[in-house]
Formats: sequence, C-alpha cells, structure tokens
Amino acid sequence: MTPTRFNTALIVGAGSGLSASLARVLAKENIKVALAARSTGDLDALAKETGARSYACDASKRSDVDKLFAELDAGFGAPEIVIYNPSYRTRGPFVELDPAEVEKALAVTAYGAFLVAQQAAKRMLPKKRGVIVFTGASAGVKGYAQSAPFAMGKFALRGLAQSMARELHPQGIHIAHVVIDGGIKSGRRAEPADAPASLLDPDAIAASYLHLIHQPHSSWSWEIEVRPWVEKF
Amino acid sequence: MTPTRFNTALIVGAGSGLSASLARVLAKENIKVALAARSTGDLDALAKETGARSYACDASKRSDVDKLFAELDAGFGAPEIVIYNPSYRTRGPFVELDPAEVEKALAVTAYGAFLVAQQAAKRMLPKKRGVIVFTGASAGVKGYAQSAPFAMGKFALRGLAQSMARELHPQGIHIAHVVIDGGIKSGRRAEPADAPASLLDPDAIAASYLHLIHQPHSSWSWEIEVRPWVEKF
Amino acid sequence: MTPTRFNTALIVGAGSGLSASLARVLAKENIKVALAARSTGDLDALAKETGARSYACDASKRSDVDKLFAELDAGFGAPEIVIYNPSYRTRGPFVELDPAEVEKALAVTAYGAFLVAQQAAKRMLPKKRGVIVFTGASAGVKGYAQSAPFAMGKFALRGLAQSMARELHPQGIHIAHVVIDGGIKSGRRAEPADAPASLLDPDAIAASYLHLIHQPHSSWSWEIEVRPWVEKF
Amino acid sequence: MTPTRFNTALIVGAGSGLSASLARVLAKENIKVALAARSTGDLDALAKETGARSYACDASKRSDVDKLFAELDAGFGAPEIVIYNPSYRTRGPFVELDPAEVEKALAVTAYGAFLVAQQAAKRMLPKKRGVIVFTGASAGVKGYAQSAPFAMGKFALRGLAQSMARELHPQGIHIAHVVIDGGIKSGRRAEPADAPASLLDPDAIAASYLHLIHQPHSSWSWEIEVRPWVEKF
Repeated sequence: MTPTRFNTALIVGAGSGLSASLARVLAKENIKVALAARSTGDLDALAKETGARSYACDASKRSDVDKLFAELDAGFGAPEIVIYNPSYRTRGPFVELDPAEVEKALAVTAYGAFLVAQQAAKRMLPKKRGVIVFTGASAGVKGYAQSAPFAMGKFALRGLAQSMARELHPQGIHIAHVVIDGGIKSGRRAEPADAPASLLDPDAIAASYLHLIHQPHSSWSWEIEVRPWVEKF
Repeated sequence: MTPTRFNTALIVGAGSGLSASLARVLAKENIKVALAARSTGDLDALAKETGARSYACDASKRSDVDKLFAELDAGFGAPEIVIYNPSYRTRGPFVELDPAEVEKALAVTAYGAFLVAQQAAKRMLPKKRGVIVFTGASAGVKGYAQSAPFAMGKFALRGLAQSMARELHPQGIHIAHVVIDGGIKSGRRAEPADAPASLLDPDAIAASYLHLIHQPHSSWSWEIEVRPWVEKF
Repeated sequence: MTPTRFNTALIVGAGSGLSASLARVLAKENIKVALAARSTGDLDALAKETGARSYACDASKRSDVDKLFAELDAGFGAPEIVIYNPSYRTRGPFVELDPAEVEKALAVTAYGAFLVAQQAAKRMLPKKRGVIVFTGASAGVKGYAQSAPFAMGKFALRGLAQSMARELHPQGIHIAHVVIDGGIKSGRRAEPADAPASLLDPDAIAASYLHLIHQPHSSWSWEIEVRPWVEKF
Repeated sequence: MTPTRFNTALIVGAGSGLSASLARVLAKENIKVALAARSTGDLDALAKETGARSYACDASKRSDVDKLFAELDAGFGAPEIVIYNPSYRTRGPFVELDPAEVEKALAVTAYGAFLVAQQAAKRMLPKKRGVIVFTGASAGVKGYAQSAPFAMGKFALRGLAQSMARELHPQGIHIAHVVIDGGIKSGRRAEPADAPASLLDPDAIAASYLHLIHQPHSSWSWEIEVRPWVEKF
C-alpha cells in the first residue's frame, strides 16, 4: 500500500488554531502551503514559520473566491489539497435570532464552501487527482436548541460534502468531512487543570486530517468525527 | 387520548399539488386556511374550492414574509398550523453548477423556512400552542451526486427543523419534518399503467401531515418519511 | 386516496399496556385480534374486553413460534397485521454485565422478532398483502452507556426491519419500525402532577401504529419516532 | 501532540487477510501480537512471520473466550489493543432463511464481540488504558434486502460499540467501530484489470486502524468508514 502524496495545499479560513496546526503538519511533509483569510495581517507569523503564502479572501463572496484562484493560478499553482474551515454561528432563543445572522451563517459556513470547492474541483478534475476536506461540527449531525443558524450552516455543509463525495470519488477526487465535536484548545481557551485532554488539541485533529489526505484510492473515508475522551455525545 | 385540534392554518408554497391536498384535508376538518405563494393567480381555484384566502409572498424575502404575517394579523389571525413547502433545486455536474442557483436553493429551501417559522413561532409561543411542518426530501438525509444545491438546501432545512424541535417542543410548539422520498403524482406526472402507486399520492402524504398535526403532547414525532412501496432506498 | 384496511391482527408481547391500547384500537375498527404472550393468564381481561383470542408463546423459541402460527392457521386465519412488542433489557456497568443477559436480550428483542416476522411474511407473501410493525426504542438508534444489551437487541431489531422493508415493500408487505423514546404511562407508572404528558400515553402511540397500518401503497413509512413533548433527545 | 502507544495486541478472527495486514503493521511498530481463531492451523505462517502467538478460540462461545483470556493472562499479558473481526452472514429471500443461520450470525458477529470486549475491558479498566476496535460493515448502517441476518448482526455490533464508547471513553478506554464498505482484495479475490483500487486493500484498511489506535485522548473517533473510490454508497 502506498499512501497518497500531494505537493500543494490551500487552507481557507487560515486564521484559526486548527489551520495553524494544519499548515505546520503539511509544511513538515514538504507540501507547499497557501493560506487564505479575510485579513492577511493575522497570517504573517504563520506564513513566515511555515514558508506559506498568504491571500486575502472573504470566502463567502464569489468575486473574492474567483480572485483567489486566479492569483493561485498565476503564482502558486493549483492546490492539490484544499481545506475549508470558515464557519459563522450565532446563538439565542429562536424567536430572537436576527435573520441577517442566519444569512451570514449559511453564506460563510456553506455557500463559501461551495464556491471554494467548485474552483478547486475545476482544477483537480482534469488531473483526476486531489482531496478536499471540509471542517464540520457536531452541529452538522445534530441540531441543538438555540442554535438554528449553526445547525443550518453545518447541515448544509455536510450535504454538500456528501453529494460531492458521491459524484467526485469515482472521478478521482477525495472528499472528506470532519465532524469536530468539542471545544478546541487555544491560547485563549485553556483546559482546566483537573480535566486533561478535555479540549481538542488542534495538532491531534490535524493528524486525522493528514490521515485522510494520505488514504489511497482503495480505502477512502468520506467522514470521520473526533472528540475528546470525556465529551458527551 | 384526545387528538390535538387547531382552528387556523397557513400553507406556504401553496401552488403545488401537495398543498392543494393539504388545503382540502384541512378545510374538511373545518380549519380556516390561508394560502401563500409567489403569485396568487394560481391559487384562485383552490381558494374558491376550500374557502381559503390567498396571499402573495416570496418566502425567501424577509420583507415579503414580514408583510404576509402583518396581513394575517390584520385579517386572518395567527395561524396555529404552519406548513412550509417551497424548495428550489438545480442539477448538473458539480463543476458546471451556477453559484447563483446554489444561493437560490439555500434561500428558497432553507432561509425562507427560517423566516416563516420564526414569524409563526413568535405568534405561537405566547399561547404555547401550534404546529409547524416542514416538507423535506430524501435529499435532506442523503446527498446525491450532481445535486449539491438541493442537498445543501434540504440538509439545512432538516437542521433547522431538528434544532427547533429540541428548543420549542418543551415550550408547547410541535415541529415536524416530513421526508418525501419519491415523485409526487400530479396532472402533469401520471403513473405508468403497469406501475400502480409508484408515485406518491398527494392525498396520502396529506394524511400523514394530518396525523402529525393531531398528535397529542405525550407522543410527538419530529420526523416521518413517506415513499411509494416500490421506491428504492 | 383509500386507506388500507385489514381484517385480522396478531399482537405478540401482548401483556403490555401498549398492547392493550393496540388491541382496543384494532377491535374498534372491527379487526379480529389474536394476542400472544408467554403466559395467557394475564391476557384474560383484555381478551374478554376486545373479543380477542389468546395464545401462549415464548417468541424467542422457534418451536413456540411455529406452534403459534400453526394454531392460528387452524383456528384464526393468517394475520394480516402483525405487531412485535417483546424486548428484554438489563442495565449496569459494562464489565459487570452477565453474558446470559446479553444472550437473552438478543433472543427476545431481535431473534424472536425474526421468527415471528418470517412466519408472518410466509403467509402474507402469496397474497402480497399485510403489514408488520416492530416496536423499537431510542436504544435502537443511540447506544447508551451502561445499556449495551438493550442497544444490541434494539439495533439488531432495527437492522431486521430495515432489511425487510427494502426486500418486502416491493412485494406488497409493509414493514414499519416505531422508535419509542420515553417512558410509557401505565397503572404502575403515573406522571408527576406538575409534568403533564411527560410520559407516552399508550393510546397515543397506538394511534400512530394505526396511521402506519392505514397508509396506502403510494406513501409508506418504514420508520416513525414518538416521544413526549418534554423528552430530551 | 503525542500519539498514543501500546505494547500488546490481540486480534480475534485472525484468519482473514485484514487480520494478516493488521498483524504485520502492529509487529512493525514492535507491538507484541496474539492471534486468535477457531483453528490455529491457518495462523502458523502469519505467526511465524510476525512473531505472534496463536490461540484457538471460538469467539461465540463463552467458555472459549474465558479460556483465551486466562491463557493470555498466564503467558502473554493483558492485551492493550483488541481487534474483533469475526462475522457470519447468510443471504437469501427472507422467507427462506434458516433461523439457525440467524442465530449464528448474531452469535458470531455480535455476541462474540461482547464476550471478547468484556474480558478485554475488565483488564483495561484498572489501568484506564486500552483500545478496542470492532470491524463493522455497511450492513451495520444500512439493512440490505435479502440480508437480514447480516444486518441484524452488524447493527447489533454497532450498538454495542456505541454504547461502550459512551460508557468507557470517559474511563480512558478508546472504542472504535470501522465501517468497511466494499469487498476486500485477497488471494482469492483479485481486482479486474480495468478497475484498479475497486477492492479495499487490507493494508490500507490496517493503516486506518493504526491511525485510530494512535489517536491521543483529546481527539478520539468512535467511528470511521472506508470504501473504494468507485464504490456506490
């Protein structure tokens, strides 16, 4: 069995801790990385550390996504690995939710994923080669109270990923959806001292992404969930 | 056991054959019916037959939905039963899909459902009484190839319904999601003579909606699927 | 639309409150009812009230099930409606469970269902007519901690029902699985005064069974869940 | 992030090609391996190649499983990794199935998994350390026509795994269920020359098992599916 190897990667929504872990783990494998975020200012340190290039892109805007891929075409190359992280959520009693927030949740979490995935797939299909990973959440498989906008966005994202998997797997493009169930550890969010590993370590999540990326054609997963050992589900 | 009884109903997306069956079955129970559709011209015959009132409303537009409920408040009363039917789909190879169609699929199928459900819930909550039924599809539980926009819309709709059920059931509002799996018989779409009952009879679907509507508090379903006996699943 | 009508019914596991409600609701429709339970002594009052006949049968024993159907053939007729209720569960820390209890949970909850369903289907298939309803539980869709035996039994039952639905629906036999999520009200188990409808009313559950039984061929459900409005899920 | 490392492994149902791949990949990591199968004769070559010990055990028999673990206790040590592979299936029209085959499918596929998992968990719990992996199938999430026994067995296995995960994860024992969807390549089952990677490569599956085994506490998966790129789902 030979693991699948790729040479280039694009991480969209690159400002998060998970994206930083992903960039590091990909760079360690000598994969050339492009980082995209609404504002590139936040990406400078990570870009420097990993040798990645940074691109400004609001993934929920079609023109921005078109521009991003045009820039990649001109100066980076078509990414063989594409990871879509952005999401937007708002919480509160259902009757008090602002409809504009629902629109935004759908736009950032699901529509942006479509835009990026379509541009990516257009470049992967001629070579029948590539992998697209969507960052999902438990909200994509279970609609929680007081969280309709996030449920709508993440359910839609899962529907997109599943539809794409059924269509594009037989064309050589691997589609994967990762259900992240739990809080992610970060500089701002530390674990209680008496609850070790109660938050997801972004490096551990990144290891599962890397496993998916390496899967050979004979044994692809379209979905995997990850959660801390103590997380209720 | 006493079945739950309601007095008023709103059917959104009232131009379909399923909506006509729903209007008839509700009218037969002496429930006062309001019909809403983008164009009321199509509703005249049904309104006359069932004694229903007609309202023009593009459910994917916030201002239209606000106006619809203001009109209902003024001249009809708050609907105790609300049924949301509209959906929009487009099919084709993933890389050829028009992003505008994806936006429309999300707007009509999911965002409009949110808008209508929120206005409805605002009026139901003070009385802790009411039922909201969403018309789903098999595309909401399984993302099919070449059908990403419909999968995104119907998955999002299901996430909305499930989140609302978890939040609003304990507040006395019954939320239900009907997974329609198969083609619906209509004037334009008849069954092959050698395949009886191979299409869903809208009257039969309406009977399942009515069953959900009558369920007493002790035994609520949040989801039911219906499909012809010969449908593969 | 004409609801499907049947003339004869068999209820297995007839000693429960749900079975009593089912017997009453079926008898009310002039359906001739057969009741089966391990001990018929408990069935006397119900049989008298509903005009049903009683049969002794341990459904987890093949010879008992064969004998039951032979007796039905001889003196009752082949049942067109068959409802399977029996289940067995045990709870406790996983490492302390008695393996014999696991065997019993599988035998009563799943294997017995197979035995009864197979005998029933053999009689229904030549007429391409009949409905078999399995009483499931939330444990059949979600495996709870400290409840492995019940999860195993009810998951297996759901697998049986789904496999049968895919095979037998196109042959005219309707298969349904009811996910009962919550406690059922009974003489021994009353609701707290301050929590109305917090337990499932067996008459309300029976109404949903009856709805499934009446569904016409064009619109069959293979699964429905029912839970009290205040039940967490 | 430090991947979890273990020192000893037990593979039950060790006669399959998947088990051989698992034994090799574990041995390569210097993990001491025990192989169990109904007949040890088939295991000789693999045991020699991987330095593993062989044990005779019919996993569906309680006395055999008790004896296996007593032997491990005496001469091998408590396994930290336990993989359960056995399954039994039979196919055919539902009404023609032999009930004895259904019993066997439940016994081998599900009850045996319980027996082995319970003995394993008893030894892992005091150290709050270990991983148990169950080999599932698409039949465990979708009940296919003409395949009720396999559906019953694999659904029950999945219920067992999910119940154990909810109970034992917070106690430090990782439970995982692998949904294998597709045929596995073997000496007897080769791929068509024009359909590369259309069968699952057992080495590729084993790589996913190894990934699960290495997951650190902060990011555990309880389920992953694997299927060939061209497999319909």
